[in-house]
Parts: sequence; structure tokens; C-alpha cells
Amino acid sequence: MSHPATVADVARAAGVSRQTVSNVLNRPEVVRPSTRSRVQAAVQELGYRPHASARRLRTRQSSTLGVRLEPVHGISGAVLDRFLHALVDSADERGMRILLFTAEDVDDELAHIEHLVEGSDVDGFVLTSTFHGDPRPAWLGTRGVPFVMFGRPWGLPDVDAAPHPWVDVDGRAGLHDATTHLLALGHRRIGFLGWPSHSGQGDERRRGWQGAMPPDEPLDALDLTCEDDVAAARRTVTGALDGGARFDALVCASDTLALGARFALGASVPVVGYDDTPVAEALGISSVEQPLVEVASAAVELLMGSGRSVLPASTGHRLLAPRVVWRA
Amino acid sequence: MSHPATVADVARAAGVSRQTVSNVLNRPEVVRPSTRSRVQAAVQELGYRPHASARRLRTRQSSTLGVRLEPVHGISGAVLDRFLHALVDSADERGMRILLFTAEDVDDELAHIEHLVEGSDVDGFVLTSTFHGDPRPAWLGTRGVPFVMFGRPWGLPDVDAAPHPWVDVDGRAGLHDATTHLLALGHRRIGFLGWPSHSGQGDERRRGWQGAMPPDEPLDALDLTCEDDVAAARRTVTGALDGGARFDALVCASDTLALGARFALGASVPVVGYDDTPVAEALGISSVEQPLVEVASAAVELLMGSGRSVLPASTGHRLLAPRVVWRA
Repeated sequence: MSHPATVADVARAAGVSRQTVSNVLNRPEVVRPSTRSRVQAAVQELGYRPHASARRLRTRQSSTLGVRLEPVHGISGAVLDRFLHALVDSADERGMRILLFTAEDVDDELAHIEHLVEGSDVDGFVLTSTFHGDPRPAWLGTRGVPFVMFGRPWGLPDVDAAPHPWVDVDGRAGLHDATTHLLALGHRRIGFLGWPSHSGQGDERRRGWQGAMPPDEPLDALDLTCEDDVAAARRTVTGALDGGARFDALVCASDTLALGARFALGASVPVVGYDDTPVAEALGISSVEQPLVEVASAAVELLMGSGRSVLPASTGHRLLAPRVVWRA
Repeated sequence: MSHPATVADVARAAGVSRQTVSNVLNRPEVVRPSTRSRVQAAVQELGYRPHASARRLRTRQSSTLGVRLEPVHGISGAVLDRFLHALVDSADERGMRILLFTAEDVDDELAHIEHLVEGSDVDGFVLTSTFHGDPRPAWLGTRGVPFVMFGRPWGLPDVDAAPHPWVDVDGRAGLHDATTHLLALGHRRIGFLGWPSHSGQGDERRRGWQGAMPPDEPLDALDLTCEDDVAAARRTVTGALDGGARFDALVCASDTLALGARFALGASVPVVGYDDTPVAEALGISSVEQPLVEVASAAVELLMGSGRSVLPASTGHRLLAPRVVWRA
């Protein structure tokens, strides 16, 4: 075994729960003698040392991944929290824990990362919220610090050739699927409501809608933009209707936009949001769901391979397909 | 004293039996308050630590607090995530970081905690989701592991005398304030929609409504219960209306219940939820907001005083007032 044995390894080898291993180590009197012997044999065979800090001194491993906890904003803000839950679970399966920190901005984040690296507090990082001109990959790459990004390296001419591992969700495919399905249901004038300024995510989602629409359908009158705000979305869609626009259905770049659109259009016009938030679920609005459990699992795999320690370098990537949750 | 204090030393100093010392450490509710105070004073004075690894915790600081990340369920599930954000911020101000772990159940949680304690990986814990019969306080108390609970120790005859620190939000006051405000607006028949089975939180919220209602108002016909589910809440309120019930307003134990009630009552009857979730905000439903930033700050203060390291023992508590976010 290439990594120091963990309680989970001992439990697996002895065919018992982690609690039982812990009992044998700490309160042997509560465990049956035959079980105790089996666990003790596994402890010996695997060379398990119960003291993590001693193990760390020996191996320099912290069995910990660092993650910046970002502020939560709005209806879709909880998506990164849901990713965090999935990441903690995926990391736990490899005996890894998650150390959280906060930062004011990306420079502050790098300062925190530097501090954690110097203290050998973490074995690697999971970065979220990537953006055009993101300085973090180069910073970490230069210093040889293992990391994986949730979010493709926007702005690189060829993201597949990025010199670091990333995992992302194919938002274009999500909007393409939603639009194709609505067309198959007989809807023709399918609008898109997206964000005004260009961003990697927003542009990809718009392209998914564009690519699915029939070539003979003029898209300009169906293509709406407004800031990510419920009231603004409602005003924008109401304004388009007042101006003579007609929509058989509307696909949106976010659940926030979808909610505003629902208020403007009523329940009779199908609306599709993005991120499948509790708000969409509570109101029965269809939405594109990101496969966050798979994202987390892929992130851990890119960082650790199939083993139990962080790899020194890795450059793989995974682009995962979302699915549309349809609601009547 | 040249040797580490023992149970016998504590018993001698407090003038009680060793069994009584053990009771105070493990089942404080069975000991008279005056005796309890005497034993606790002796524990503090002698610096008694029941467990060797807890002594290590004190001397070898990790500048890290452990928190179990619980699964997210439903509309209100993100409340603990919002608390986590506030906690990471409050801890950061004291130079502390948060280590996350997951657990299947409370036994698994204790196994994880034990592992973290053995490894000196954390200086203390922040526990959430307290419940009647919660084994964690006694387990941690016995071993001298510093911790603070978000949630009062439900089930103790006198929560103020709990031998460990806790911080909680006064849900009773929140519902009382909401009801009082609705009465002042001229509403009379104010209903309550809560959960069917008894729980500390649910019962407190119901009591807040009961206590604010005028003594001459018969409450039975206004007191509704159903499971925490949007469709069930809608059915329950619709059923009450069909049965001849009339409501001027309705206060609810959760935003989930408030959303179902809103669907049943329409927007003309004021509805108040609990937890001020994004769903309540998006739909313009009034809601009781827990002061999570203050909760986190109080938790860190109870655990660390005004300093930058975790205190060996602390028994303070804070019951914070929520506020009602009124929406038209």
C-alpha cells in the first residue's frame, strides 16, 4: 500500500466498522475478544499508527484538501455549497478531509493558499469559480502545488490542452437538450433569457439554445438579456411581451431569471431555469441540474488518481453532461 | 500538584464521591445544581482532564475547529450552510480554520470526532442539530474535549445549567413577535401551522404563537399540523378552509409550510414562515430570520473567550433573538 494505513483500511481488512476499530484502539473492553484479535491482526499487518500527527511527520501528508468557501448570493448561490457537500463525501472515501478558508478576493485567496502550503496543512486544493484571466492556475503550477479546478480555464485558446486538471459541466449541452425537448413538444418560438455581459458560462448557455433552434427561426427577437435578478427578469419579459414579442417557451441562464420569467408569463408558458435550486423545485419550474456528485468525484479522481494520496501532477479534464429536470 | 489531577483528587476537593464526579461529567442532569457547581469548580481549579489526548489538544494547538457537514434537505436545509459560512468568517478573525467531516449518524460522528481528537487535528468542535437524548455533550465532556453547541441541550430540566457552552436562537420569541405584529395590524384569527410530532424547536415555535394570542381567542381551530412538505401544507390548509376555518393570517414553523399555506390561501392573507430562505425572499413571503452571523460569533466567543486559543472549559450560553423580515 502506498499510503499510510487508515482506520478505514483496518476496518476493511478486518471486516468490521470504523467504530469497531476505534473501540478496539480506545475501549477494547467493549469489543468481543475474537473481533478484537481480528482487528489487532489487521492493525499489525497494515502497520496502522493511530496518531495522525505522527503519521504526518513521517510522511509529510496532511490528508487534507483546502477549499475556499465563497460568499453565498441569491437563489443559485447554494450550488457551491451543494458541491462542497459532495466534495466532503468524495474526499472522505479516500480518507481525505476538507479544510475551509475564506478570502476577500483572489489575491487574498492566494495569500491564504501560500500560508497553508508553507505550513504543510494541506496536500492540495480544489478551486472553484474560475474566470477569464484567473491567476491561480499559473501561481499554483509554478510552485508545484497540486490542485484541480471546478470550472474550465476560460480564455485559454484550447481548454483541453490546459496544463492542469479541471472538471466542468457542459452548460451548452444542458440548454441544447432543453431547447430540443421543447421543440419536440411542438413549441416553435422558444426564447432565451440570459445575462448582458459576456461570461464563459453565460455565453456557453446561450450557444446551447442557439445551436438547437431551427435555422429558419429568426433568433434576434427571441434573445433577451437582463441582470441576474428576479424583478429585472420579470420587467424584461413583460416589456418584450408589451412590445409584441410572443413566446411558446423560454429557456433561461439561471433559476433567478426563470422565476422572474414565470411571473411575467404565467404557468401556461413552459420556462426552464438552470441549477435546479430549491426555488425551482418549490415552484414546479423545470431546470437544468448540474451533476455535482459526479463533479466532486471527478475532481477527487483527477487529484488523486485511484489511490489515497494527492498526485504530484495531473493534467486530465472531465466535461460532464447536465440533465434537465422537467416539471409540469 | 505534581501529578495530573485524577477523579479522586476532584472528589476529595469537592467533598463528594468519585461516582458523583463521574455523574457530573457524564450525566449532569442527575446531580443537584449546587453539587454540580462544586464539582465543576474543583474540575476547573485542579485542571482535571479526563483523557490524555484531551491534554494533548490543550498543549498542541492545531488552530482548527472541527465541524460535521450535514446533508442538505429541502427549502430550509441551507440554513446550516449559511451558519457554516458565518462560522468560517468568525473563526478566521481569530486565526482559526474549519475542518469538515461527514458522518452517517451520531455514532459515526463520534467515531470521527474520536479520530480527530486522537490525531490532535483540531482544538475543539462546533456541534449542530442538537436533539433530545443527544449523546455528544456527555461523550465530549467526559473526555475533556472543548466544544460548543448550536442548539440548546433539549431535554435537560434546566438548559441554563448545562455543563457546556451553547448558543441558540429563541424561536418562541420569533413567533411571538410575528403574531404580536399581525395582531397590531388588526388581524384577529391568526392561525399556526406546525409539525405533528413533538420537537424542541417545533414546540417552542408553537408556544410563541400561543403566548401572543389574546386569551379570549379559542386556539384549537386555529392550530394546524402537518409534516414539513409543501404539498402536505397546501392540503392541510385547504382542508381546514373547506371545513369552515377562517384565517386572517397564518404563522408557520418553517418556510416550507409557509409556501404550501401561501398556495392554499393566496397572496391576500398574510403568511409568515421561518428561516428566511431564498424561497421566501423570491416569493415575497415574510419570514423569521435567524441571526446566523451573531450565532457564529457567539459560538466562537464561547469557545475561545476573547483570545486566540480554545479554552479548556466553558459553560456559558447565549439565546439570541431572531427578527421577522416583513414582506408586502
